[in-house]
Amino acid sequence: MSAAAAPLALTIGEPAGIGPDIALLAWLRRDAAALPAFALLADAAFMAARARRLGLDVPIAAVGFGAAGAAFSHALPVLDLGMPVTAEPGAPDASSAPAAIAAIDRAVAAVVAGDASAVVTNPIAKHVLYEAGFRQPGHTEYLAELAGRHFGSTPQPVMMLWSPRLAVVPVTIHVPLSTVPGRLTESLIVETGRIVARDLAARFGTPHPRLAIAGLNPHAGEGGALGTEDDAVIAPAVAALRAEGIAARGPLPADTLFHEAARKTYDAALCMYHDQALIPIKTLAFHDAVNVTLGLPFVRTSPDHGTAFDIAGTGRAEPSSLIAALGLAARLSAGSRRARAA
Amino acid sequence: MSAAAAPLALTIGEPAGIGPDIALLAWLRRDAAALPAFALLADAAFMAARARRLGLDVPIAAVGFGAAGAAFSHALPVLDLGMPVTAEPGAPDASSAPAAIAAIDRAVAAVVAGDASAVVTNPIAKHVLYEAGFRQPGHTEYLAELAGRHFGSTPQPVMMLWSPRLAVVPVTIHVPLSTVPGRLTESLIVETGRIVARDLAARFGTPHPRLAIAGLNPHAGEGGALGTEDDAVIAPAVAALRAEGIAARGPLPADTLFHEAARKTYDAALCMYHDQALIPIKTLAFHDAVNVTLGLPFVRTSPDHGTAFDIAGTGRAEPSSLIAALGLAARLSAGSRRARAA
Repeated sequence: MSAAAAPLALTIGEPAGIGPDIALLAWLRRDAAALPAFALLADAAFMAARARRLGLDVPIAAVGFGAAGAAFSHALPVLDLGMPVTAEPGAPDASSAPAAIAAIDRAVAAVVAGDASAVVTNPIAKHVLYEAGFRQPGHTEYLAELAGRHFGSTPQPVMMLWSPRLAVVPVTIHVPLSTVPGRLTESLIVETGRIVARDLAARFGTPHPRLAIAGLNPHAGEGGALGTEDDAVIAPAVAALRAEGIAARGPLPADTLFHEAARKTYDAALCMYHDQALIPIKTLAFHDAVNVTLGLPFVRTSPDHGTAFDIAGTGRAEPSSLIAALGLAARLSAGSRRARAA
Repeated sequence: MSAAAAPLALTIGEPAGIGPDIALLAWLRRDAAALPAFALLADAAFMAARARRLGLDVPIAAVGFGAAGAAFSHALPVLDLGMPVTAEPGAPDASSAPAAIAAIDRAVAAVVAGDASAVVTNPIAKHVLYEAGFRQPGHTEYLAELAGRHFGSTPQPVMMLWSPRLAVVPVTIHVPLSTVPGRLTESLIVETGRIVARDLAARFGTPHPRLAIAGLNPHAGEGGALGTEDDAVIAPAVAALRAEGIAARGPLPADTLFHEAARKTYDAALCMYHDQALIPIKTLAFHDAVNVTLGLPFVRTSPDHGTAFDIAGTGRAEPSSLIAALGLAARLSAGSRRARAA
């Protein structure tokens, strides 16, 4: 099978969450959403049982990656992990942690081997994995570790939230707001900006990406009157990015950075902290934002939501973010192939 | 003239900015926008000259408040300040500061006397006023000082940004982000919430207002893992507001607080800092958000933008935010009259 036709590798994520539900629902919408072929790394019997429970007519085809593309039109291809899963919806159970982790491992291995074109991950429940000995803070860091195992050096992963209307990158992420000013350094902002610019060019088909760099303080500090970091840390980082030939602008007042006319002036906004990035994208694209990990040697996307234990197994889960994640993964892996061929 | 028919008192703001332009443009749209009658506190000759410069056919009627309502249909009523203004567009000049300040003083006096129904202010340039001896940080604090002069006690003003889609109140405003965690106190949040709830009931016609209180940290602190202020400061403030019978909820993760379905669950969102409030409203309502000062003994609104010196006198200024501010002022003053009559 040529790399161009390889299916996407979709992990099951936390089996007690909505990952299995949205995988089934996404497959049912494969024609309406013009979805690329994907293969689910999971327990085939568990998936068949979840489909019955939801009353969904989804045939399961237990296949290898090589047969997944052909099977996709008439059945959900499942790469069986050989690890039975018994978790009930909404009742996470440490016994399924090895399968959740194995799904990630196998998805990465398949992409490295050329059997799959990109990794798409369903949400995991970190506390379940921690009980099973998982050592990384989350998905993203674990994927960087796997990249290091396969390629020898561990890359710096960068989280982007992407939607057709807005793409944002938080420079700091899951940390207390009070620690953000101290964590922001010129080198962190520059390194993040470099990775974003490189991946926008190599994968998103944006040869000369434009980066908008948000200020930290109100009005980007208003010349120092409202805080010193914008002038002392962010402005030099913007200058350093520009000196490397990257079209970066900033620090820009964050409040006027996300309305429609402003969004047309850049390809991605670098934000200084979690809510500065996630407020605008979740306001504008609550249902179809996609989490993309930049900086990895392979394409990885995931839906921009959690396990939603409260609605798992009920049929009320909404697959739109997973559908967007699958579509973007196919687009980015095609972009990567074009960039390598060029 | 009955209070119900009193015109709005609109200040000229900084004469070198776009205030005069948008006042003229708003008057021209009075029928299309169904605007309430307003009278502009300004220099009548200056306004006539600005209209000529812009090529706008706006007759100026130099009248008192009593005649403004009748004049409004065929001319822009101007309450002449008796203080000639000579500033050129884009070239602020300290000589016009006394007129800008007098306009505010006269507008408040007119509302207190019952000659006007509400105060609507055009943007001022603080640095111009500082040169002329202005001592307050901004418009809002000066209006509170004037209220104190008229009524004996200086109220605590609270800034709300309002649009038909979202209303937000920043609990801290123009301060460095690094100082926000230290400034947030239970009493500040409670006092802000009380004022918001009271004015939503008394002026906005929302008898049982629902307040959403945003968290400070990512995911509202995630039980302390991502910061302590949400549990230690914000949660007790929410409990105190609820104990007073105010329908407050929180601390809520800020990133998921502003999408369409979430916005339907509250009447106003209390945000902990400037950008947390202003990012969502400027993303959703860039052209028609209104700045409303709550907590004053009279209604005051203003457009949610600055003096825009770069486009003053060019005809490119957009009056939509001023039009929204005039409309909201009329609605709130009518609400106040209904509340007093009830």
